[in-house]
Amino acid sequence: MLLLHRAVVSALRQACRFRPPPSRLCIQACSTNESFQPQRPSLNFSGYNSSTRGWRIMGALLGFGTALAYHDHRCRASQESPPMYTKEEVYSHRSPETGIWVTLGCEVFDVTEFVELHPGGPSKLMLAAGGPLEPFWALYAIHNQPHVYELLAQYKIGELKPEDSAPPTLETSDPYAHDPMRHPALKVNSQRPFNAEPPPELLTENYITPNPIFFTRNHLPVPNLDPDTYRLHIVGPPGGQSLSLSLCDLYMFPKHEVTVTLQCAGNRRSEMTQVKEVRGLEWRTGAISTARWAGARLCDVLAQAGHQLSEKEAHVCFEGLDSDPTGTAYGASIPLARAMDPEAEVLLAYEMNGQPLPRDHGFPVRVVVPGVVGARHVKWLGRVSVEPEESYSHWQRRDYKGFSPSVDWDTVDFDSAPSIQELPIQSAITEPRDGETIESGEVIVKGYAWSGGGRAVIRVDVSLDGGLTWHAADLDGEKQPPRKAWAWRLWQLQASVPAGQKELNIVCKAVDDSYNVQPDTVAPIWNLRGVLSNAWHRVHVHVTS
Amino acid sequence: MLLLHRAVVSALRQACRFRPPPSRLCIQACSTNESFQPQRPSLNFSGYNSSTRGWRIMGALLGFGTALAYHDHRCRASQESPPMYTKEEVYSHRSPETGIWVTLGCEVFDVTEFVELHPGGPSKLMLAAGGPLEPFWALYAIHNQPHVYELLAQYKIGELKPEDSAPPTLETSDPYAHDPMRHPALKVNSQRPFNAEPPPELLTENYITPNPIFFTRNHLPVPNLDPDTYRLHIVGPPGGQSLSLSLCDLYMFPKHEVTVTLQCAGNRRSEMTQVKEVRGLEWRTGAISTARWAGARLCDVLAQAGHQLSEKEAHVCFEGLDSDPTGTAYGASIPLARAMDPEAEVLLAYEMNGQPLPRDHGFPVRVVVPGVVGARHVKWLGRVSVEPEESYSHWQRRDYKGFSPSVDWDTVDFDSAPSIQELPIQSAITEPRDGETIESGEVIVKGYAWSGGGRAVIRVDVSLDGGLTWHAADLDGEKQPPRKAWAWRLWQLQASVPAGQKELNIVCKAVDDSYNVQPDTVAPIWNLRGVLSNAWHRVHVHVTS
Repeated sequence: MLLLHRAVVSALRQACRFRPPPSRLCIQACSTNESFQPQRPSLNFSGYNSSTRGWRIMGALLGFGTALAYHDHRCRASQESPPMYTKEEVYSHRSPETGIWVTLGCEVFDVTEFVELHPGGPSKLMLAAGGPLEPFWALYAIHNQPHVYELLAQYKIGELKPEDSAPPTLETSDPYAHDPMRHPALKVNSQRPFNAEPPPELLTENYITPNPIFFTRNHLPVPNLDPDTYRLHIVGPPGGQSLSLSLCDLYMFPKHEVTVTLQCAGNRRSEMTQVKEVRGLEWRTGAISTARWAGARLCDVLAQAGHQLSEKEAHVCFEGLDSDPTGTAYGASIPLARAMDPEAEVLLAYEMNGQPLPRDHGFPVRVVVPGVVGARHVKWLGRVSVEPEESYSHWQRRDYKGFSPSVDWDTVDFDSAPSIQELPIQSAITEPRDGETIESGEVIVKGYAWSGGGRAVIRVDVSLDGGLTWHAADLDGEKQPPRKAWAWRLWQLQASVPAGQKELNIVCKAVDDSYNVQPDTVAPIWNLRGVLSNAWHRVHVHVTS
Repeated sequence: MLLLHRAVVSALRQACRFRPPPSRLCIQACSTNESFQPQRPSLNFSGYNSSTRGWRIMGALLGFGTALAYHDHRCRASQESPPMYTKEEVYSHRSPETGIWVTLGCEVFDVTEFVELHPGGPSKLMLAAGGPLEPFWALYAIHNQPHVYELLAQYKIGELKPEDSAPPTLETSDPYAHDPMRHPALKVNSQRPFNAEPPPELLTENYITPNPIFFTRNHLPVPNLDPDTYRLHIVGPPGGQSLSLSLCDLYMFPKHEVTVTLQCAGNRRSEMTQVKEVRGLEWRTGAISTARWAGARLCDVLAQAGHQLSEKEAHVCFEGLDSDPTGTAYGASIPLARAMDPEAEVLLAYEMNGQPLPRDHGFPVRVVVPGVVGARHVKWLGRVSVEPEESYSHWQRRDYKGFSPSVDWDTVDFDSAPSIQELPIQSAITEPRDGETIESGEVIVKGYAWSGGGRAVIRVDVSLDGGLTWHAADLDGEKQPPRKAWAWRLWQLQASVPAGQKELNIVCKAVDDSYNVQPDTVAPIWNLRGVLSNAWHRVHVHVTS
């Protein structure tokens, strides 16, 4: 039986060798970008306005409706009386010790033996352990082939109880009741408000992050906005005219597209927590993602309302349509100089990777400020005004600022530090994972690197010995114009593991084109909010002999 | 006798308490900025076209001609036959062990006992040990008072032999024979070409560095240019017109002034050398200085020649009128986008702190590129052209680039790294000095901080315990517009020395407004040319009990 598997898997692996051209880093094992081409509407997964629609609809849109029909048929036609399991029972099987179960449609499979043989690597399959395969197959359309279904069928152990096929009921009194459905691969740091990051293995699988797994940082419940009645209010200057723009009005401005990496100020906060407690969500390395955004340039819209670049310092304030029970909306601001600079490419974006914005990412309109911290990219945008001062919002004035390690909650003076705008140089390792065991011989290290302010990443140094010696990694990524390197570089290093080595202390550090570098350690940049965590990223792995 | 001194010194110290207003950091002990006001032509010390003029002329211009006359009178009128010394004998007395001698005019003084009583601090007086006082008194006009001369007279031990008053003769075959006279306070790293930095105590004494002690980085002999025949050649675009501009032509463009800090890429290289040998001059912390520059904006001059901002990447190439024996001139380039951006304030500068440029700093015209490494601020500017590629000069293509620590002279590929333009965040401690012994009680730590690309320094953290705990220093400096923080911040920290402490490991690190920070240690940023040395600066001091 195992031999048969190996033969099938070998053929499958062969079939999966869709290597990208040599100029691009090979970061995909057994997947294609296909399912995330802009023209495929299925990708806009978390953007559905009703969470009662589910994997089935997504599956159909994705083009594997046939496959689901096949499964429906199997379920209905089955004359045997297979063992029946609840979702909870499936969920309790997520490790080699308990067995690793997954579901597809109403069927339950024990894939414990198959995990190690998975052509995309065991870790990818483990992301689905204890739950449905559909959301992952939606990401990797390569699975939509008869021989994959046949392979899987051999592992069937039973079916889901019928009541577990129904979508979950939602409490309507819950302000988060109308939040959209999310992709199960996301690692949830907070359910309400929803904050989640993609797992490292998926994060650097694609240069453009698929919408369903783009990291999500919400501060409040997701508003449920009707695109037909939506209006964006642009406050005009004295003597100018205020604008109330429908989506169609916004479409009339020249459409501008730009690939931009967004990063939350709290990315890698979990490493700061290890030094000393901070207040904030426990982001690991995934509060960063990259998309192709399209929309109207903010400078064009502001100009239409009569705004001009002023000699005096001024700020463009944004207000979201998300609000807390008191009616306070999310808000933030950026300097007018950046907003009015066509080269800064600040967008009022209505598309993300060729799709209307997903609800979790600001449907129907959000701000995109290339090179600037995520907190200023206000989602569900309702109002834009030009003010002599920065936004008075909590998130502009009393959050998202950096302080000396000596400052604590008793001594902090939020007015003493500037609000975070451009972010510093950053990089992290996504493979291998901390604590993983790797085989001797060769190791492949992968990760991402990015810097704020349009500064290009020019080099990533990787060390296997904790920082004593360094190797320059291979960089991948689109060519970006000088001073406008808004998107990350993915990188990888293939290196020999020194003979006899029982463990590796893998470290990465990046350099941008202003030759800024990352600090060696976390403690000296520790701050009470746990933001700006950009020390060398370190991963410790064991080596089998 | 000692008591008398103390009384006089006390009165002198009293007279010297010209405290700046509280909003500015007090970094001056017994000095004023007076002698470096732009309207005082005397400051242009190293800019004299003939090195046969000397301290006497400078003194006269400075307004203490009276004082020098007084000394001439004393020398001529002396009826006694005082002991006569050579310059060499004076120079051999530069330590408490040998005695500390100085000269003023033809007189020789043994100030060993006075050093500790010097109102400006012993270290300032020690800068003049073994040589003439005039260049230092030219920096600090406060000395120009009768009671100072009376005080000094008490230490007279003899006179200089007459032949030692003659200016040094120069070998005319030496290509460096016509280099200008330099200020003796400069610490010389290389005489030919001349490369020198101010000592730390003087460096942060003034926000604006006095011209005579502004760090000097020459790559070739200093050309001796006639301002009347000088022409700057601006190559026009196809269909445009080339310009041949006299100084008067350049004065006709709108005059633009800006305060800019220049830093050599090799600043603090000496710390890299301690990790592993590098090729380059042994700069300590002084290859950085700040001046108020004035000139025509490069964008105005380029526009006059018909140049426009191009969609394609292009570069503005500069050529100096300094050249090696083969006729190869110094050259460098910057991106056209920066050159054409009025907000980038790139200058063709003809004034430095209100003076014509000193010869060592590019007389009559140099480029000033705010926020960019010193190597692109081409001096003695002869030619400007717009090219599709960067300058082909050695200094653009085969120097002034950063590499991984793993790259050595056998493996280096200069084409693989971008030329250094904007510099990363930097800071250093100027007081106390490494190895110094300080008194217990309180310590005052002083230094500078600066970042490239117009990024403002927002914080300097200082540690007294090697980086375990941190204090935020007080920042001084002029207010600078957002995104145009071209000049440094001076800073100081006054802190208690923990009781019983026998030594302090003082460390500083700065943060800019993109929240970039300095790396903790030098080794991981080591590179074969020893550039971009911006790790935490560390100073070890002993504490007397």
